[in-house]
Amino acid sequence: MKLLSFRNSRGKRSYGIRTERGIVDLGSRLGERFPSLRALLSVHGGIALARHHEASAPDYQEDEVSFLPVIEHPNKIFCVGMNYAAKRQEFNETNPAPTLFVRFPDSQTGHRCPVIKPAHSREFDYEGELAVIIGTGGRGIRREDALLHVAGYACYMDGSARDWQHTWFTAGKNWRETGAFGPWMVTSDELPDPQQLQLRTFLNGQQVQDDSTANMIHPVAALIEYISTFSLLSPGDVIITGSPGGVGKKRVPPLFMKAGDTIEVEISGIGRLSNVIADEVLEPFEGYEVPRVAETATA
Amino acid sequence: MKLLSFRNSRGKRSYGIRTERGIVDLGSRLGERFPSLRALLSVHGGIALARHHEASAPDYQEDEVSFLPVIEHPNKIFCVGMNYAAKRQEFNETNPAPTLFVRFPDSQTGHRCPVIKPAHSREFDYEGELAVIIGTGGRGIRREDALLHVAGYACYMDGSARDWQHTWFTAGKNWRETGAFGPWMVTSDELPDPQQLQLRTFLNGQQVQDDSTANMIHPVAALIEYISTFSLLSPGDVIITGSPGGVGKKRVPPLFMKAGDTIEVEISGIGRLSNVIADEVLEPFEGYEVPRVAETATA
Repeated sequence: MKLLSFRNSRGKRSYGIRTERGIVDLGSRLGERFPSLRALLSVHGGIALARHHEASAPDYQEDEVSFLPVIEHPNKIFCVGMNYAAKRQEFNETNPAPTLFVRFPDSQTGHRCPVIKPAHSREFDYEGELAVIIGTGGRGIRREDALLHVAGYACYMDGSARDWQHTWFTAGKNWRETGAFGPWMVTSDELPDPQQLQLRTFLNGQQVQDDSTANMIHPVAALIEYISTFSLLSPGDVIITGSPGGVGKKRVPPLFMKAGDTIEVEISGIGRLSNVIADEVLEPFEGYEVPRVAETATA
Repeated sequence: MKLLSFRNSRGKRSYGIRTERGIVDLGSRLGERFPSLRALLSVHGGIALARHHEASAPDYQEDEVSFLPVIEHPNKIFCVGMNYAAKRQEFNETNPAPTLFVRFPDSQTGHRCPVIKPAHSREFDYEGELAVIIGTGGRGIRREDALLHVAGYACYMDGSARDWQHTWFTAGKNWRETGAFGPWMVTSDELPDPQQLQLRTFLNGQQVQDDSTANMIHPVAALIEYISTFSLLSPGDVIITGSPGGVGKKRVPPLFMKAGDTIEVEISGIGRLSNVIADEVLEPFEGYEVPRVAETATA
């Protein structure tokens, strides 16, 4: 089953099931009890409840909705770097521990929405990745149980301002609307082995990344075990599992994204996430009036 | 004015003003409109509204409440590393950009609460820091206006599992109840220049860190400008501005924290944050029943 978050044509947020015939709106049926897909995933029987509506007549066609990030407001988004052999070689990474950084939810965007190239970056790069959506939370999750905690999988395009990234990643990975997450999640019953998926990235239709998730250094189950050792995982949390080799920064000459480019991430058994790059429109700061709290305030 | 978050003796969460006479409970007076200190800070007049109650008779003495982190659930917690000359020297850091990592809110704890030494770490280290609490959010905040966006300042003890830290910090800085945040925030009208504060850390009464915030590489206003370039800041967001030299990892022999130790961070004009270290009690994973979604699931 494919679950997605979207806005309908009137702009109202909802979530639903993507079927071959169209989108079944679950928000209109279950929204009072479960206002978001994250809320639905947070109960044991949430996916089974959704499945009861799978055969319903569709409410929308795909082109009638605006896709949102699969989970719009995860509690935690953990991002794994340097998790494929080829990528580690490109970046000379030798540390055996999983490389981990954090994205805030407001850095995300949905399928077919613009991905915003930061005006302050001259090195805006693509990274196609497998995203894991947690269904059952926990701390101290054992590797052998870890996949049973997964609700589903999606594609992620981890847009990266390389010139702001450094070895701590935070500033390179948190620009608004740079992380595309979609188009939908495929529930884990349909993808029992996340290490047997083919992942390809296309820039303007040209294949720029192509690898199997079998080549992850730290497979999904190991990542869940590692992360849950030091931090509680909750339903709707997201782990982005790292990108294969072939990123633009390490090409000769480098290949960065610019406005008008189409970037696509395709994973076998999931689908193809597609976004067009747009330039950031820089505006002077316009907050509400700044309280002038102290005459002596200095910069 | 000193603002704090706490639980009263019946366990109810609230927030209030710490006066010389005791704590004035604001939650009981304003809680229907503003359920948390973060909510109060999110309106322009929130601090002025609090001030109307400053002269009220206190509701509690300090020892009648349990302190919570000053802001219990910030939307974003940005942590700055390597921001004092001595610390940079200790860690051979030469990158001129601000080092930035993220803490999740569940890694925090309050004044006088136990700080939990992770069972999986043999290098649990202290870092005394100045915490900045954002009052007015924004993106693209200019350095010369930045301090006008600050609601107040507090002490922070950024407890760090050095053996999990690496150059991306995430796993070293997110263990539960390792970041002590308190005892309260002092509103920015009383601390017009955050670069003229003396910061001292004491381990079991022995001074282990002593520096002036004048020696920050990136002062508070520069940090707000830098961070708001790539990420929206919101009321109640927290920036932890980095620790001076003298941390335990770089001493000969190293000096790490263990159960029973008292760790204190004192900043002039703010107060002294005090916590006792406790050992983590490791329990086998006990979630609710894990749904067995797929017979073929593998680890």
